[in-house]
Amino acid sequence: MSRLSFASDYMEGAHEAILSRLREINYEKMQGYGTDPLSEQAREKIRSACGCPEADVFFLVGGTQTNATVISALLRSYEGVVAAVSGHISTHEAGAIELGGHKVLTLPEHEGKITAADLRELLVRFETDEARDHLVRPGMVYVSQPTESGTLYSLRELREISAVCREYGLPLYLDGARLAYALACPSNDVSLQELAELCDVFYIGGTKCGALFGEAVVIPKRGFIPHFFTIMKQHGALLAKGWLLGLQFDVLFTDGLYLKVGKAAIAAAGRIRATLREYGYQLCWDTPANQVFVILENAQMKRLAESVEFSFWEKYDATHTVIRLAASWATTEEDTEKLLVVLKENVV
Amino acid sequence: MSRLSFASDYMEGAHEAILSRLREINYEKMQGYGTDPLSEQAREKIRSACGCPEADVFFLVGGTQTNATVISALLRSYEGVVAAVSGHISTHEAGAIELGGHKVLTLPEHEGKITAADLRELLVRFETDEARDHLVRPGMVYVSQPTESGTLYSLRELREISAVCREYGLPLYLDGARLAYALACPSNDVSLQELAELCDVFYIGGTKCGALFGEAVVIPKRGFIPHFFTIMKQHGALLAKGWLLGLQFDVLFTDGLYLKVGKAAIAAAGRIRATLREYGYQLCWDTPANQVFVILENAQMKRLAESVEFSFWEKYDATHTVIRLAASWATTEEDTEKLLVVLKENVV
Amino acid sequence: MSRLSFASDYMEGAHEAILSRLREINYEKMQGYGTDPLSEQAREKIRSACGCPEADVFFLVGGTQTNATVISALLRSYEGVVAAVSGHISTHEAGAIELGGHKVLTLPEHEGKITAADLRELLVRFETDEARDHLVRPGMVYVSQPTESGTLYSLRELREISAVCREYGLPLYLDGARLAYALACPSNDVSLQELAELCDVFYIGGTKCGALFGEAVVIPKRGFIPHFFTIMKQHGALLAKGWLLGLQFDVLFTDGLYLKVGKAAIAAAGRIRATLREYGYQLCWDTPANQVFVILENAQMKRLAESVEFSFWEKYDATHTVIRLAASWATTEEDTEKLLVVLKENVV
Amino acid sequence: MSRLSFASDYMEGAHEAILSRLREINYEKMQGYGTDPLSEQAREKIRSACGCPEADVFFLVGGTQTNATVISALLRSYEGVVAAVSGHISTHEAGAIELGGHKVLTLPEHEGKITAADLRELLVRFETDEARDHLVRPGMVYVSQPTESGTLYSLRELREISAVCREYGLPLYLDGARLAYALACPSNDVSLQELAELCDVFYIGGTKCGALFGEAVVIPKRGFIPHFFTIMKQHGALLAKGWLLGLQFDVLFTDGLYLKVGKAAIAAAGRIRATLREYGYQLCWDTPANQVFVILENAQMKRLAESVEFSFWEKYDATHTVIRLAASWATTEEDTEKLLVVLKENVV
Repeated sequence: MSRLSFASDYMEGAHEAILSRLREINYEKMQGYGTDPLSEQAREKIRSACGCPEADVFFLVGGTQTNATVISALLRSYEGVVAAVSGHISTHEAGAIELGGHKVLTLPEHEGKITAADLRELLVRFETDEARDHLVRPGMVYVSQPTESGTLYSLRELREISAVCREYGLPLYLDGARLAYALACPSNDVSLQELAELCDVFYIGGTKCGALFGEAVVIPKRGFIPHFFTIMKQHGALLAKGWLLGLQFDVLFTDGLYLKVGKAAIAAAGRIRATLREYGYQLCWDTPANQVFVILENAQMKRLAESVEFSFWEKYDATHTVIRLAASWATTEEDTEKLLVVLKENVV
Repeated sequence: MSRLSFASDYMEGAHEAILSRLREINYEKMQGYGTDPLSEQAREKIRSACGCPEADVFFLVGGTQTNATVISALLRSYEGVVAAVSGHISTHEAGAIELGGHKVLTLPEHEGKITAADLRELLVRFETDEARDHLVRPGMVYVSQPTESGTLYSLRELREISAVCREYGLPLYLDGARLAYALACPSNDVSLQELAELCDVFYIGGTKCGALFGEAVVIPKRGFIPHFFTIMKQHGALLAKGWLLGLQFDVLFTDGLYLKVGKAAIAAAGRIRATLREYGYQLCWDTPANQVFVILENAQMKRLAESVEFSFWEKYDATHTVIRLAASWATTEEDTEKLLVVLKENVV
Repeated sequence: MSRLSFASDYMEGAHEAILSRLREINYEKMQGYGTDPLSEQAREKIRSACGCPEADVFFLVGGTQTNATVISALLRSYEGVVAAVSGHISTHEAGAIELGGHKVLTLPEHEGKITAADLRELLVRFETDEARDHLVRPGMVYVSQPTESGTLYSLRELREISAVCREYGLPLYLDGARLAYALACPSNDVSLQELAELCDVFYIGGTKCGALFGEAVVIPKRGFIPHFFTIMKQHGALLAKGWLLGLQFDVLFTDGLYLKVGKAAIAAAGRIRATLREYGYQLCWDTPANQVFVILENAQMKRLAESVEFSFWEKYDATHTVIRLAASWATTEEDTEKLLVVLKENVV
Repeated sequence: MSRLSFASDYMEGAHEAILSRLREINYEKMQGYGTDPLSEQAREKIRSACGCPEADVFFLVGGTQTNATVISALLRSYEGVVAAVSGHISTHEAGAIELGGHKVLTLPEHEGKITAADLRELLVRFETDEARDHLVRPGMVYVSQPTESGTLYSLRELREISAVCREYGLPLYLDGARLAYALACPSNDVSLQELAELCDVFYIGGTKCGALFGEAVVIPKRGFIPHFFTIMKQHGALLAKGWLLGLQFDVLFTDGLYLKVGKAAIAAAGRIRATLREYGYQLCWDTPANQVFVILENAQMKRLAESVEFSFWEKYDATHTVIRLAASWATTEEDTEKLLVVLKENVV
């Protein structure tokens, strides 16, 4: 019997509606590079969902690519990007930001999040440092929603961070690789419209949220990044068949699908968390989204691995490990049930 | 009535067999980043088709991205890449190579091709320049097959270029964005096996050759580029759902599909060229592949544009323009017939 | 007997007044990084000489460094710098501009100069290219005075180039590595004040013009390049003992020394040219400044090399070579006399 | 009365012998770019002093430039440099390393030093991380001697670090901006020969150690960095009048001057430290070299600033500050005496 797989949320293909639409349109001849009508239609739907009718919207292929391209576009050569020490750009992008010439200026993480207070302290320390002209100048702020630890910024937290950014003239950029899962959380109180209001740039993740691949960059204020099309091309981030991305986001933003696509995963993750708590497992962070981080005794982890695929997250101590169980838009109730049984059987 | 479209060869989706396979596999859970069995199977088939069982094979998303990533991986910071002045990297990649820190050292183009003699002359001139340590050092050679002008290197020509490269210790890299069309040309005498023998790196184009997207980088000598996986990640060129690329190349390299997929386009382009010649149009270059370059009087071009979409290529003189008509793997005989009628009607 | 040396204009140390001042000040304790009073005094004198009391003035160490730092500061990542194909940044800077991520967009050279007409044509071609968003965007213009071929832009020529730049919103940057020699030419009609009026950034060369080393970057419009100090630091172009540069430019701009320091070289070069003409040598370009380019038959060149050091410039044809004889601020009448004798003896 | 100045060790010009030699040679005509006999003579003397007759030696202008150029030359694009969190490249180089495309991978600092144990732990953690191909690969190690905190690596410590580097195949690079002061410390047990044996590249600082400016890069194993000359040129780090650097290092390595030039500073710093201790000041780190770091109550600091220039180092707590007093090769006994008096008067 093959193992249950809860290793990540990018293991399946695409939502049914996307595949169907793709089949329908396969032989239509579409203009290249996102200049096609389908992409324009998707852009319109995203503008509407975000309540920013003037927004620039661009479609890119993947997350690291999107982060590197946007950050490179927002910064001048002598500026760095402020991010949590646990932020994806700080850790798992193989130096893509530095390849673009920029330092990641790290802030402490609090369950994956930065705080407005820490941000302000960093900026004050920079501004008051007599040697500041010899330092990397903070040029923008990066956050992710949900964070890499699966936590969510509340509207209040994000407002505070945004306020500090605006006070200091720093663009705020939000990485929404898993945004559909945030939007599907009952405890989430940050809407797309509020993201558009508080961020200067953000991206709506497709790859992990029901699309085959693709991320939609939203720049609420039209023209905020001049020549972003050329910047994308220069970064190898301009898909020749841009309509493939347009098609997918058109489907995801038809009839509010993007707001619903993460719900099954949130329900599954909720049941997994409840079972874990019930059986005395130790959860690592109190996360509401589609990823569950749990601390296992090492032998227990090995046993679990016999029947379930999961992600190694980090060593907790000499005898324990943090693992991640991820539910996705495609996770079935049947698989979740099977996982719950296995978890019960694996209680120490 | 909508216009006939011969504007480019990346306007349609994917070969039927790819869409079917995608639908079959949509809910299977696949490991990320190309570590899945389907990608491995595709790599095996490509190694076999290229006659290089030890080759490293990597799947990337698009052409500019592939060029930028491979060139960056092959060069040291102080080296440049030698290419035709008309090469894609010299012209239409928005400075992606320079963004990576490298100069494109241009050679004259002969219907889109470079010659071994010109290459040798450039290298001799460099080696004998007293100020060579103040110059950009030639570090590799870039060619494309077919070229940007739709022409093909013969086996003899490619052997000569490869020989000069090896004499001077420069890697030879071949951009095969449209390789399926070269392989489908009756006049082509360069096989995949010979590419693998003569080049240090080459890529087999998918985006324009029947795939939704994707390019397969082949490095015949295993380990020739250490840590290419990380280099891809750093360039934002590592697709999370790498299996999407593996799936497509697996289909394209099953039962020799890649060798056949371009044949319809070559047949269509042949008929278009024959008709153009018959009716006294002036062809720009004598190209055997899927793109037809024709010189039109400007008023004639405008008239043609009423019923056919084509690509503007370049101004020829004050009153004439070069346009491109491109057939693709998906071009139908019906559309070709219609185009031939329009061309006959548009004779000056 | 050692050979006469006319190989370049950076073979000697510094003007007497600089060495004296250095000795005087050697043990004074000066603030670092150009924040010292001597540097400020030098900046004031340069502002005054250029008639731009608000200018930002920065001192860097060498020419390639200055070009790379200024160009990097003026361009956005997706922009290139327009320059003559013979411009120093196009040829002899080992890819320093590309290392900074930028393409050099070349224009034809006319005795080392670009023309406003060629520049306009390039810009019009770019603006009207349908694929311009896939091209490198022209972002600034680079010229040198004197040019690499020793020629001078006239005031009219420079005005025309500047006018095109302003029409298209491109900064104009002038490399004045040998500016003292231009200013010392009787035929020159472009003053420092006019450079300040027509250029957005220019540099006043010290290394080849009487200083031990150093170049003074003048930005007539204060604040035109924000954070240039940090940009210098990031490029390794900020000298710890910035006062060494301030001291030298303070001396060079005291009592108009900079306007006089090149005169001896111009006189020497004039005599050399007159003698060459008189004896039937073929001059390569009609240059008024301190460098003399002459075409020699190869055997004649070898003979000359026995008694004179000169620079190989380029092959002229199979049997002839262009060489450069350079006079400097330190060239003595005695050496010039000896050279004239040798030249007379070497007539074919 | 002007204030006593102990703000830094790069406030004065050059050792007497250098100025004299410069005056002597001022009008000799020297080949450019370090190809002159004086530079070659200096290289020979350095090779001899370091006991590595085959070493490549290059002269650069300043510290940040040297670090950026060497690090860029040693790393592949996907590699980072390991350094103390307090290392100069981690803090005060305005992102020069990141501009070159590389991340600084930080280790904890122990009074400015890294430990072999911490280094090994970082390398083991990297090698055993399942996601290591998504991380920045450690590609070299950076240390400084003395460190930025004024401390010294012992021979044992450096041997251990070097051993870990060699075990993992990482080049070890040592920044010797203040190396003369380390060599002049009685407690120092690391000689130039041992540096050459333990490091793959190191630089011998001139700017802060008696030269007007200049740093000598030593690469003990000839050819270890191919084309370093071109790399220097490309980084704007190749001085046209390279002989100016050759001259200075020739003097500094004649009759062992470099080993003696820091002694006065070490003596002065020793007396300052003794006085501070005697009068109950709190020293920040126990440093043997030419910099003294002392913790002052803020009001006390203000009072001291009335008669002494020093460097603000960092806030210690709400009411205290760390300042730096630096002695240099040119510090006089007279100034030191005056400082001691002031320090006595400022006791709280």
